[in-house]
Amino acid sequence: MANMDKYLKTVGNEIWFTEADRNNLKIDYRIKEIIYSETSPFQHIMILDSYDFGRVLVLDDAVQTTSLDGFIYNEMITHVPLNIHPNPKNVLIIGGGDCGAAREVAKYPGVERIDMVEIDEMVVKACKNHLKEVSGDLSDPRVNFIFEDGTSYVKQKRDYLYDVIIVDSSDPVGPAVKLFELEFYQNLYDNLKEDGLMVCQSESPVFYSEMMATINRRLKSIFPVVKVYLATVPTYPGGLWSFTIGSKKYGEPNPEAFDKETRYVNKEIIKSCFALPNFVKEQLEAN
Amino acid sequence: MANMDKYLKTVGNEIWFTEADRNNLKIDYRIKEIIYSETSPFQHIMILDSYDFGRVLVLDDAVQTTSLDGFIYNEMITHVPLNIHPNPKNVLIIGGGDCGAAREVAKYPGVERIDMVEIDEMVVKACKNHLKEVSGDLSDPRVNFIFEDGTSYVKQKRDYLYDVIIVDSSDPVGPAVKLFELEFYQNLYDNLKEDGLMVCQSESPVFYSEMMATINRRLKSIFPVVKVYLATVPTYPGGLWSFTIGSKKYGEPNPEAFDKETRYVNKEIIKSCFALPNFVKEQLEAN
Repeated sequence: MANMDKYLKTVGNEIWFTEADRNNLKIDYRIKEIIYSETSPFQHIMILDSYDFGRVLVLDDAVQTTSLDGFIYNEMITHVPLNIHPNPKNVLIIGGGDCGAAREVAKYPGVERIDMVEIDEMVVKACKNHLKEVSGDLSDPRVNFIFEDGTSYVKQKRDYLYDVIIVDSSDPVGPAVKLFELEFYQNLYDNLKEDGLMVCQSESPVFYSEMMATINRRLKSIFPVVKVYLATVPTYPGGLWSFTIGSKKYGEPNPEAFDKETRYVNKEIIKSCFALPNFVKEQLEAN
Repeated sequence: MANMDKYLKTVGNEIWFTEADRNNLKIDYRIKEIIYSETSPFQHIMILDSYDFGRVLVLDDAVQTTSLDGFIYNEMITHVPLNIHPNPKNVLIIGGGDCGAAREVAKYPGVERIDMVEIDEMVVKACKNHLKEVSGDLSDPRVNFIFEDGTSYVKQKRDYLYDVIIVDSSDPVGPAVKLFELEFYQNLYDNLKEDGLMVCQSESPVFYSEMMATINRRLKSIFPVVKVYLATVPTYPGGLWSFTIGSKKYGEPNPEAFDKETRYVNKEIIKSCFALPNFVKEQLEAN
């Protein structure tokens, strides 16, 4: 176990993990067991079994997903864009190492190809082995794992384009910063068919509203249709989380068509997730 | 400052408040300044100036509201029921010591009487003096402060009944337990006009789903119309928060009629807040 002291502390006979990626707010999770703890070429990866959230994926010092609430984020980042696009065949996922987004995309029989470009193979292996509540078993033959930097991948020419691109990134810190830049969004545009669309997680309107507004502004400079929707993700600071769609053509959801088996998303959620509180509208309009 | 050590700790030259009302999850807030710290006959009351949330009201060891996000909870617990009722005149608020709910109710010119029954006068004074972002100045002459136990208040006979009762309670721990019992709900029913309705905060579907389901079951045994709606409250564990309406007659919101100046609620939010994720529906149906 590499660097365990840096991330975990023992109080009496209790083990605690402290998430301290914000300077002035810390969240302490009591841990039953350290399931996995390894350092990859990119980051430190842990899977912890916690009391309140079940199994937790931690990259460096930040909680990425948990077996308690991972389904909320993964269903929202996939089913909303796949409901807006009337007939998605080729889907690209950038990031999403927990495999939860790929698992949801695989629920669409019309999807023929799911390319999943994740920089860190060790995250995928850890989640497939130790976080099955999120990853599922993911034996679907349509899923192609490509272990590569997402920003390099979208610069290359391929003989096919995508209908939907899902950017399931971590926060804009360190290497992930490039996944929030204009050049990257332009490359996504170039990788989409003429009626394609992309979605990205666009941070918390509570704590990172400037980032959310910046993403919105950048996408609007490239895509004719840009839409923001929200979900509550209990394990992310601020709880309220935003997703932004950039689309070449389609912008309206078709809730009545939604027929997948899910734990969070349903017709009413697809209809209602685009309702933005006033303070979120103001943040988007101010930028 | 009473018992300060119990609630706050100093790390180097930093002050931290730890919320530890759950056994296996702790949230640590870095504090700029302790604004107020007193023990009332009912609880320990603190108002802290924090780095990430602005001013924070803490009762014993639990964060109740903050100047960053207090408006979300207070707008949602008031404007939704006041939008469903077509013509509310007499409004009763039980709890709500931060005065934020009363402040929102006072935005309705048609409301003639706002009775606010709060057990702890010191909470009201502290919030009026030190938490104005939440309490407003609240000089509205329609607001009658009644410093009394809410469960006793609703047992008494008065010569008028209410159109809307808002139960803005803390969590069902200690004295607040009585505010979640069948007898209390029956007394609310008896205090309502023949077309009246009540609303209560009904806890987190993520961490306290059994409590949410119990409240729903109890209200259904008394009121012909029962409805659950949701909001994201960043400072409450689990983020996703539920509210439950028990009504004698009206159950449908009238979003188009909403015309108040607010930071969270708007027509789309009133329309969309009744959309429940599948896992919440299942929790309510299972009980």
